[in-house]
Amino acid sequence: MTSVTVLGLGPMGQALTSAFVAAGHQTTAWSRSPGTPAPVGAARATSATEAIEAGELTVVCVRGEAAVAAVLDPIDDLAGRAVINLTSGSPVQARARAAWAAERKVDYLAGAIMTPTPSIGTPAALTLYSGPESLHRRWADTLAALGGTARYLGADPGRAAAFDVSLLDMFWQSVSGIVHGLALARAEGISGSDLVPFGRTMAGLLPDMVTRFAGQLDRGEFPGTRSTIASAEPGLAHIAETAEYHNIDASSLHAGLTLIRRAIAAGHATDGLARLADVLNPRESRSQAHRM
Amino acid sequence: MTSVTVLGLGPMGQALTSAFVAAGHQTTAWSRSPGTPAPVGAARATSATEAIEAGELTVVCVRGEAAVAAVLDPIDDLAGRAVINLTSGSPVQARARAAWAAERKVDYLAGAIMTPTPSIGTPAALTLYSGPESLHRRWADTLAALGGTARYLGADPGRAAAFDVSLLDMFWQSVSGIVHGLALARAEGISGSDLVPFGRTMAGLLPDMVTRFAGQLDRGEFPGTRSTIASAEPGLAHIAETAEYHNIDASSLHAGLTLIRRAIAAGHATDGLARLADVLNPRESRSQAHRM
Repeated sequence: MTSVTVLGLGPMGQALTSAFVAAGHQTTAWSRSPGTPAPVGAARATSATEAIEAGELTVVCVRGEAAVAAVLDPIDDLAGRAVINLTSGSPVQARARAAWAAERKVDYLAGAIMTPTPSIGTPAALTLYSGPESLHRRWADTLAALGGTARYLGADPGRAAAFDVSLLDMFWQSVSGIVHGLALARAEGISGSDLVPFGRTMAGLLPDMVTRFAGQLDRGEFPGTRSTIASAEPGLAHIAETAEYHNIDASSLHAGLTLIRRAIAAGHATDGLARLADVLNPRESRSQAHRM
Repeated sequence: MTSVTVLGLGPMGQALTSAFVAAGHQTTAWSRSPGTPAPVGAARATSATEAIEAGELTVVCVRGEAAVAAVLDPIDDLAGRAVINLTSGSPVQARARAAWAAERKVDYLAGAIMTPTPSIGTPAALTLYSGPESLHRRWADTLAALGGTARYLGADPGRAAAFDVSLLDMFWQSVSGIVHGLALARAEGISGSDLVPFGRTMAGLLPDMVTRFAGQLDRGEFPGTRSTIASAEPGLAHIAETAEYHNIDASSLHAGLTLIRRAIAAGHATDGLARLADVLNPRESRSQAHRM
């Protein structure tokens, strides 16, 4: 068993604390909001410093990098401490915080929690880690308290956040499509329940599309055998027209039309839709990554 | 068996023609492009009028409403003819074309083909119809040649197109998310194949989300138990920041951020994401639909 400290008692911080307690770890929690109680079984520290001193491992999960800075920056001496930061953020933020930690000789691992609060401590949890592999190995048994799948992704401390933002990008735009399609349907007098059987079938096509598009992007081959960029354009224009007819914002559709027209202008009219990933980010710009 | 005419010999027109031929119907096809041959087994008419005269039923499938107008508007007398228009378009276009047909005493049914060309004539096909129910019943056996599921949706001739644009809206934005997430991942040095297992799991959550969000919208209840509108905002901001860091267009994400901020300003911060459909199209604006 490990003595674990959790900094942050928002919904996710509470879930993490409860999971460490449930796994039998001696757990101390702290929050900037003085009124927030620690979950049953965890000690409530009165300061971040006191909390950090109580644990062999400190897990940080607060609301964004600004809150991380507010919590960690004032602490005098973190040298030699093990800190795992599960606060969500961008890869740039994750790399900057890792550099900050390296300067202070903190044993620092960056993580990302991919599943919602209720999943923590259950088989449904998915957590991603990146940074020094030795550190991940050192704390893997303790982190197993969070449940489900814990994946180590590599030494670049921004890599967990990079997976996070890429997957969240896919997820958010799909969510956006679902709510936008439901809004459009309702404006046309179609109820949610009328649309569900068709919408489920449509959504069920997406996992295989992820696999197919990812493979095409990796190979740099974009066959237009199923559908082409050119053939997508009129459909998108009809959606945007119909949305605007009902005073529903259509800017995400116009963003799509702009991208499609860019791809057509670049000579990709008869390519498949996966080509759009290549148009958004041509292979040449890869050199921008890996600045660490 | 029926004598069927297909107007339009693009990829979908060819697929329709072949499916009618395969089902044993005497099929005549015509295209504005004189060079385009009819699929094996179908007769090639030399004019639209000749084609229409050869069939008890005329199926139109051309590239958009402008092409429908170019084909049908010059024809002198369509009175008493049965015409089923499977050209994709907006609900407004579908209703306008149905009104045009009613003035000319055409037996007119509007349809939408939801599945790609190779599905036609197979169990995977999905076609939607709206307009006079008697007309759909009259031709249902003939249309069965197109395979799969054929659903009659109601008397409003715009209803098939309304389902089409709503489902295509969901589908397109999901596609957009997949290509955008893959582009972002690649800019961060993550290959498509690295992302696939996580991306498939994420996409696998979407069918149930369609069901859940549709039910919430129908009931007008948007519980924030799984995730809230406020909690989505920082994630979206991180995606947009990371995209822009890599010179990847982020306008679809900014559209999402604008919507989220609109919802928060309207007091919906702690509601679930399905509330966004209601924010996009408040219930009051339903009166805009059903103008027929």
